[in-house]
Order: sequence, then C-alpha cells, then structure tokens
Amino acid sequence: MGRSKADGVLDRLGRQVVAGRFLPGGRVPTEEELVRRLRISRPSVREGLKALVRKGLVESRARRGTVVRGRENWDILDPDVLRWMAAAPPDYAFLMSLVELRAIMEPAAARLAAQRATPAQILKIERAFRGMVDSLPQDIEACHGHDLAFHEGIFAASGNAMLFRFYTAISTVLLTLFRASTEARESYQRSLAEHGEVAAAIGRRQPEEAEQAMQRLLRGTVRDLEPAFRPRMNSKHKPKGGSKR
Amino acid sequence: MGRSKADGVLDRLGRQVVAGRFLPGGRVPTEEELVRRLRISRPSVREGLKALVRKGLVESRARRGTVVRGRENWDILDPDVLRWMAAAPPDYAFLMSLVELRAIMEPAAARLAAQRATPAQILKIERAFRGMVDSLPQDIEACHGHDLAFHEGIFAASGNAMLFRFYTAISTVLLTLFRASTEARESYQRSLAEHGEVAAAIGRRQPEEAEQAMQRLLRGTVRDLEPAFRPRMNSKHKPKGGSKR
Repeated sequence: MGRSKADGVLDRLGRQVVAGRFLPGGRVPTEEELVRRLRISRPSVREGLKALVRKGLVESRARRGTVVRGRENWDILDPDVLRWMAAAPPDYAFLMSLVELRAIMEPAAARLAAQRATPAQILKIERAFRGMVDSLPQDIEACHGHDLAFHEGIFAASGNAMLFRFYTAISTVLLTLFRASTEARESYQRSLAEHGEVAAAIGRRQPEEAEQAMQRLLRGTVRDLEPAFRPRMNSKHKPKGGSKR
Repeated sequence: MGRSKADGVLDRLGRQVVAGRFLPGGRVPTEEELVRRLRISRPSVREGLKALVRKGLVESRARRGTVVRGRENWDILDPDVLRWMAAAPPDYAFLMSLVELRAIMEPAAARLAAQRATPAQILKIERAFRGMVDSLPQDIEACHGHDLAFHEGIFAASGNAMLFRFYTAISTVLLTLFRASTEARESYQRSLAEHGEVAAAIGRRQPEEAEQAMQRLLRGTVRDLEPAFRPRMNSKHKPKGGSKR
C-alpha cells in the first residue's frame, strides 16, 4: 500500500516545515522532485503530501504548487506535529503560549487533585517527586522523566478525563520546555522545593494551597525560561497568535 | 485500497461502542463475523479494527478476541471519537467533565480576549451575540450556531493558538451540551443576558469583568443542565474519571 513510504515523505517534509526550513508561502518540492529524490512512487508522495495538508502545514495553490502555511494554521494537537515541534529548535512564542496554557490548566488540576486523588494517585505523585530529588544533580534527563510523571500524576488525579487527555497532548512538548528551563536556571533547588510544596498540599488534601503552590511552581518556570531567550526576544520572536480566523 | 471500506467498519463499530451498545470488557463481532455481515474483505476489516484500537475504544485479548475498553481509555480528543460522542445519547458524567473543563479554560480565554482582541475580533464576538438574539425564539438551531461562533470568537481572540486549538477539539461536543441545556431551561433570556455581559466586558477591554461574566455564564449552563439529568443522576451516571493510569 506504500503506506510506510508515504509516512517517510510525511515525516521528512513535516520535520523540515516545522523546523522553519521553508518560510510561510514558500514552495515545498513538487511531486516530481520528490518522486525523483526519494525514489518512491507518485501515489506514495501524494499520500504524504495529503497528510501534510490535513495537518495544516501546507496547502495547494493554483499555479504555485504546494506552499507552506503560517504557523497559526498548524494542527498543534496532532501527535506528528507535536513530535516535530519537540524536535525543532525551541521557539520562544510557542513555548510562552504553552506556559500560558499551563498557567490556566495546571493550578486547576492541582486543586481538583487535592479534592479527588485516590491514595494510590497521591503515592504516585509523591514517588515522582522523590524520583526528581534522587536523580539530581547527576542525571538531569532522568529528573525530567520524573518531572513529567509528576505533572501527569496530578492531571490523572484531577478525575477529569478530558483534562487528562489535554495533558497527554501537550506532554510531548513539555519535555522541550523542561529542557529549555533547565539550561537557563542556575540550579534545580528552588524548582524542587516548589514541586515538593505542590505534592504536600495535594497529600494534605488542601485544594487552595495546592492551587497556589502550582501557581508558584509555574511562575518559577517562566522565571527560569526568560533568560534563555532574552537575547533573541526582540528580533522575530514577538508573541504571535490571535490571528487564527 | 479498501480504505473507505475500512472507514465503514470503523465508523459503524465506533459509533456502536461509543453509544454503549457493548459493555466494557464485552466482545465486539469477530473478524469473520464482520467479513460475513458487512461483505468486505478481511484486510479492510482488520484495518478498521486497528484504527479502533488506536483510538482506545477496543483492545485485543488473547483467546477472547476484540473487547471494548472502559470509557476512560477512549481518545476523547480524536475527531472521530468526538463525532461519535456527539451523536450518542448524552452522558451526564461526560457532559459534567466538559462543563468543568470549560469552567477552567473559558474565563481565562475571556480575560485574555479582553486584553488582546483586535477590533475585528471584538466585532466578530458582538456579531455572534447579535445573531443569537435575532434567531430567538423561533430558530433554536441557528441560535446554537451563533452560540458556537461566540465562544470560538473568544478563544480566537485570546491570542493563544494552543488554547484556540483546544476549543476546536471540544467544539463538536459543545453543541451536544448546548442542546441538552436548552431542552432543560425555561427560556433563553437569562442566558442571552449573560452572553451580552461577556461581549460587553471584552468590548470595553475589562479583563476582570470579562472573566467574571464568563464564570456567571458557565454557572448558568450548569444550572440549566442539572434538571435535564436529575432523574437519571443517581443511577449509573455517577461522575467517573480519575481512574486513568
């Protein structure tokens, strides 16, 4: 069925588009070029391009061929798009919109978790926090893994299946955010303490406290993230968005 | 390549599973049965079943065949799953988790919209509100359409592309919620006034007011929704969730 070959075209082009290799409005290689370069059949090339259209990355224009669309059209909940974004160089505006989204959802998730978490779910959150503590300072990647488990545990304990599903959608890019923050911050100590306070408030079943502790934790993420981008902030990385529709 | 036939299997079985035709753990028809009944090839049947597995609706169990998974495993951001949910009889627990999610995201979206909306976006929100007013009381379905446009306009004006994308994910099921609320409420008058206050606060660029007006509007939705389900609430429709992972 040429399915996996189409996936190859998709993955290769998708990754390039998301990494900014083509400017919005710029033309991607034609079907002929792709058939020739990648040595795969035209139906496979076509299927791959069609998938890119569905994901909002490119569109067909009469007499212009296939062109790249502006970032505001990309389907940023699509697992492929998220994977390509996570692999691309971090983009300040995108990370800031993610931080803003977390500031909306996570304090609420922490509040609900303090109300509803089962003992097993509390244990899981505490264990993730313990894992973060134990893996530092020597193993930062392991710490990021526990950090993800920590936030996943809180969303799971919120008892709202839709909220949890939203978390799993953004978890791919969350790791990019963790890495960017870690590079910037001087030490993990303050962040660890903030995670500890969230876990403790949920364990004591204090919704208000849990919500506020999570707000402090997220403000910490912004605090850590900004210096990493400061040199680049006033060039092309102005916050965007709002232009959709 | 039998793609559309696979889609037929997918759609038919997906719809049945989501509508609760099989209990969790219950067996769906075997490949043989589906080949016979639907008169399509085995590869097409297999492809359709595989898609259902990816969406979290069913799983293969050794010596048991393909069985239905609990609702907490369904991919509720998948467009097909959302479409099937919108078509199925409304489920109280699911609608309540949607209401809870809206209570988290929409007041924040309204606050951001009051800060960032362009004049054109404000106009769009006001026009949607006007459309709601004008289509009542005679055309409730048209009113729902404008109601969707109203909320979409606010998320678009929030200037956060991820937040907007989350809105589009839930918009399919939002209509189900609107319909369920409308059936329950005595008149649209109070709800209209609540929408008007949100639009006005965004137009005056008052973030706090916009946030609070949206909170009142959403409390109104709950107020309207509860009576519609009261007779059924204490049977099997206990709030669920939180059991995922």
